[in-house]
Amino acid sequence: MTLVERRPLPRVQTEKPETADIDIATTRPGTPGGIFMRQFWHALYRSQDLPAGHAKPIRIMSEDFALYRGHSGHAQVVDYHCPHRGAPLHLGWIEEDSIRCVYHGWKFDCSGQCVDQPAEESGFARKVQLRTYPTREYLGLIFGYFGPGEPPPFPHFPHRTSEGLIQVWNVEQVPCNYLQSFENSMDEVHVAFAHQPGGSHAKLSADLPIITAEETDWGMLRYGTRKTGKVRHTLHYAPNLTRVIVPPLAGMDGVGGWTEIYFSFTPVDDENHLWLITSHVAVTGKEADAYRSKRAEYDRSVAAAPPVMDVVRDIWSGKQRFADVVHPDLAIVQDIAVQAGQGRIEDREAERLGRSDAGIILWRKILTREFRAIAEGRPAKRWTTPPADVVPTLGF
Amino acid sequence: MTLVERRPLPRVQTEKPETADIDIATTRPGTPGGIFMRQFWHALYRSQDLPAGHAKPIRIMSEDFALYRGHSGHAQVVDYHCPHRGAPLHLGWIEEDSIRCVYHGWKFDCSGQCVDQPAEESGFARKVQLRTYPTREYLGLIFGYFGPGEPPPFPHFPHRTSEGLIQVWNVEQVPCNYLQSFENSMDEVHVAFAHQPGGSHAKLSADLPIITAEETDWGMLRYGTRKTGKVRHTLHYAPNLTRVIVPPLAGMDGVGGWTEIYFSFTPVDDENHLWLITSHVAVTGKEADAYRSKRAEYDRSVAAAPPVMDVVRDIWSGKQRFADVVHPDLAIVQDIAVQAGQGRIEDREAERLGRSDAGIILWRKILTREFRAIAEGRPAKRWTTPPADVVPTLGF
Amino acid sequence: MTLVERRPLPRVQTEKPETADIDIATTRPGTPGGIFMRQFWHALYRSQDLPAGHAKPIRIMSEDFALYRGHSGHAQVVDYHCPHRGAPLHLGWIEEDSIRCVYHGWKFDCSGQCVDQPAEESGFARKVQLRTYPTREYLGLIFGYFGPGEPPPFPHFPHRTSEGLIQVWNVEQVPCNYLQSFENSMDEVHVAFAHQPGGSHAKLSADLPIITAEETDWGMLRYGTRKTGKVRHTLHYAPNLTRVIVPPLAGMDGVGGWTEIYFSFTPVDDENHLWLITSHVAVTGKEADAYRSKRAEYDRSVAAAPPVMDVVRDIWSGKQRFADVVHPDLAIVQDIAVQAGQGRIEDREAERLGRSDAGIILWRKILTREFRAIAEGRPAKRWTTPPADVVPTLGF
Repeated sequence: MTLVERRPLPRVQTEKPETADIDIATTRPGTPGGIFMRQFWHALYRSQDLPAGHAKPIRIMSEDFALYRGHSGHAQVVDYHCPHRGAPLHLGWIEEDSIRCVYHGWKFDCSGQCVDQPAEESGFARKVQLRTYPTREYLGLIFGYFGPGEPPPFPHFPHRTSEGLIQVWNVEQVPCNYLQSFENSMDEVHVAFAHQPGGSHAKLSADLPIITAEETDWGMLRYGTRKTGKVRHTLHYAPNLTRVIVPPLAGMDGVGGWTEIYFSFTPVDDENHLWLITSHVAVTGKEADAYRSKRAEYDRSVAAAPPVMDVVRDIWSGKQRFADVVHPDLAIVQDIAVQAGQGRIEDREAERLGRSDAGIILWRKILTREFRAIAEGRPAKRWTTPPADVVPTLGF
Repeated sequence: MTLVERRPLPRVQTEKPETADIDIATTRPGTPGGIFMRQFWHALYRSQDLPAGHAKPIRIMSEDFALYRGHSGHAQVVDYHCPHRGAPLHLGWIEEDSIRCVYHGWKFDCSGQCVDQPAEESGFARKVQLRTYPTREYLGLIFGYFGPGEPPPFPHFPHRTSEGLIQVWNVEQVPCNYLQSFENSMDEVHVAFAHQPGGSHAKLSADLPIITAEETDWGMLRYGTRKTGKVRHTLHYAPNLTRVIVPPLAGMDGVGGWTEIYFSFTPVDDENHLWLITSHVAVTGKEADAYRSKRAEYDRSVAAAPPVMDVVRDIWSGKQRFADVVHPDLAIVQDIAVQAGQGRIEDREAERLGRSDAGIILWRKILTREFRAIAEGRPAKRWTTPPADVVPTLGF
Repeated sequence: MTLVERRPLPRVQTEKPETADIDIATTRPGTPGGIFMRQFWHALYRSQDLPAGHAKPIRIMSEDFALYRGHSGHAQVVDYHCPHRGAPLHLGWIEEDSIRCVYHGWKFDCSGQCVDQPAEESGFARKVQLRTYPTREYLGLIFGYFGPGEPPPFPHFPHRTSEGLIQVWNVEQVPCNYLQSFENSMDEVHVAFAHQPGGSHAKLSADLPIITAEETDWGMLRYGTRKTGKVRHTLHYAPNLTRVIVPPLAGMDGVGGWTEIYFSFTPVDDENHLWLITSHVAVTGKEADAYRSKRAEYDRSVAAAPPVMDVVRDIWSGKQRFADVVHPDLAIVQDIAVQAGQGRIEDREAERLGRSDAGIILWRKILTREFRAIAEGRPAKRWTTPPADVVPTLGF
């Protein structure tokens, strides 16, 4: 008997971005990806989850921070550890807009200047700085800037273009690299399968969109063209934000009309990210009341349901069939099961991309080009703030 | 005070297999152990746990797979990730004997040929193959073959030699390397201690068997010789299957008569394995009914008891004394507590083997010889299918 | 746009121990820290938690052991694995003062000599030794010695200097390096903040002690001097024991009078330690009865409360605010949240030490000097047993 190692099947290459030697998934400090990502504002937290006088631990792009809200209402990101002896600063307490470390009472104002050290000599405090990070709020979310120098203009997020409600959904921590979820949001075809599993797709398949995409000054504009000739526009703002328009949501039927949804995929570290979802619902007056009431009902059903990640883990382990799941946040369960099911960091070398992956292919090319420029010290692209007049369309 | 590092006590060597530089425990792909193990069929799953139209994730020898059963009843092992974008295939759904990926609807027949890609051009599908693995069922278990070329003859498992019932037990995932459990099954002496802890062993010790073993074309035949001259035969089929005959089982007293038990120790990865237990009970007609009824009662008591691994962890942490445990699967608790208590991968260099370890010593010599041949590119042994006429004996 | 990596803020150095290249936190075998720590007796277990005839697993300084108590009452530390086939010895059973392995019945007396091997030839047992470790009991604790040669005199612990009760608290396993907790015990200033968080500290801050410290033959004597001129003495016995005097404890008001507390911080491995707390309460007769009764009430409230580490994890994750916690062991929750919140092994390079850290600074200098001597093969300090006449004082 001759023993030979198993060889992989030969692979026919269709199309593959030039990603050799460039890690497009990492956002660790000091890597090309980490430098690239730190050019932008990042959504961190729901404003409503941080009352005045409270502090919370956050982890963004493999670094730990404390986020607190002063009594004036100002939110501030600072380093996680007190510079004195390393105690976690979010254990401390808030005095006006300053934070005082719980360990020895060192107090820092919101610029990071140490302003009190109860047990030390008087000259020491002015020599001590806590690192702080530009922090802003908009559309119900807290954003932070973690790069060098001045942050880019704010809001980087789309300007509100019409009256309506802002609805920030529950924040999920997803156990995979952020780029997998961002890529999933560029993938219109998955909707017919991952979100309607097990059915007859004959009809759906007959009208799947053809995907095309083009780079813009602010990110990528992606098109889904139907046989009817109708075209759906979806906006992908660099580096991790998707703006899409959808029909009335499941569970919200009859209220809310069209909705714009903004997805932010904020890296926690290379193997986890936050999925923050904001809806802009174009209703006012009585329609808004009806929407709020329906939404409150929906929120109660989510609170009563098992946590999304518990269901996902049951799907992964084979305890529950994907197609059998019933859950008020079903689409979120489905997306996470598929995206994070690719692995903590997907093996992109093993993929076989096709024409339906056109948006993903283009975005990887852009990342690869930018990361290579950063790695080689060449000038990188100067991204602009998204314009107010380019908006998503429903297209069907 | 002079400070010196602690030196280990000098060790008097009794007998030790020549295992230097050869890792006899690993089954990772590409290692000598991985190549050796992939010559054989491996038991993977209980047939009764995989209904038609269902798919499950499995991990065998450090690689992930999906296992599904088509609507015809055919079971099939395929790669875990869809070749398109890496989604877990067991999330997909079954159409006849094909599996369709939940992410974008790519469909693969049970040979692995891609036969549908709803959103791609028509010529692409025929270029895409999903890797599949020979899959068979026998005696209530699903087997897979993960090696190169054609698999060896099937069944590799012993032919049924008499009428009777087949009973497949609950499958346990044991948190240690498979070889520890296989070695435990070669170790007849442990029964008097690990399975009757804390008692007076004066009588038992007076009649412990003398262990001897010989290599065969299909594995190893092991003898336990008592002072009475009676000899117990136990069969160890290469590479991880033990066939043993036992008296009526605890909890089953009065029914079932003699029972043959087949243990399969299938590596999940180097630090975990599946312990699959099949009994062949020589009863028919009314005796079979009585056995089934007693067994159903036993299964209910197991279902009502704490999970085996919870009890084992309580033993390891010192919360519960080994000798005090009461559990319907007591012998399984005892074996796992001892075997996996040796460590995830036992440090065999630290052992002091004796004459009672003769079976273990021989099997390690065989593995070492075979792995060395594989490592050096020399011809390895051609193992044969176990013969029908060599059977285990009770011997006391 | 020019992309530059973020640079850390320049740091003004105040005072820093000379720790370059010396790892003062590790206690792994063979490291300077491991050799240093193995010169001393270490507290391991509460005597009351180890009944005669029982065995428990312990892990000390990154090595595993079994600890058992023979039927005579003698406690003994031995290696974790049986030298035969590596089964965990604490699964075995006790015969008089010997331990018998559950796997094959090998029996070892409390010197480690193998005295029975039921299935082996008669000459083998005398060649087999189990490693044992000097084991002693004092003040309600079991101690072990893990170094070479003869252990130092016992007790290394302070001689009882007056009549009274000995109270051993619940043992906590703390998820950080032992040195962080030992350093916290040298840090008198933290009491005004970590143990009274969120309040007005104006009054407290007005009378924070000035910390000074001096090396002694047996460790370090530390002083906290108040504005009143009163001085509090605290004793830090090498390498990990703190002896401190405190007012009547929270929850025990009205009984017990002054209390001496001995803290032992025993390394489990480099990222975990045991915090063992013994109180010496100077009461006798009726006062002792009142204390015991109050203490039993307190113990019941601790048993009914959530486990300390559950509360700490809720604090770390931001689910519960440090300043809002209510718990009968509040001071322990607070200390662990802060100490282990510094990280599993604190990054001491990032600290900014001040005058209030004088005790910590001195102890690090001592460790660095000793570890360097060990690393370079030079003679290390000969530590003496603590004297009976140097005692802690309350000082306020």
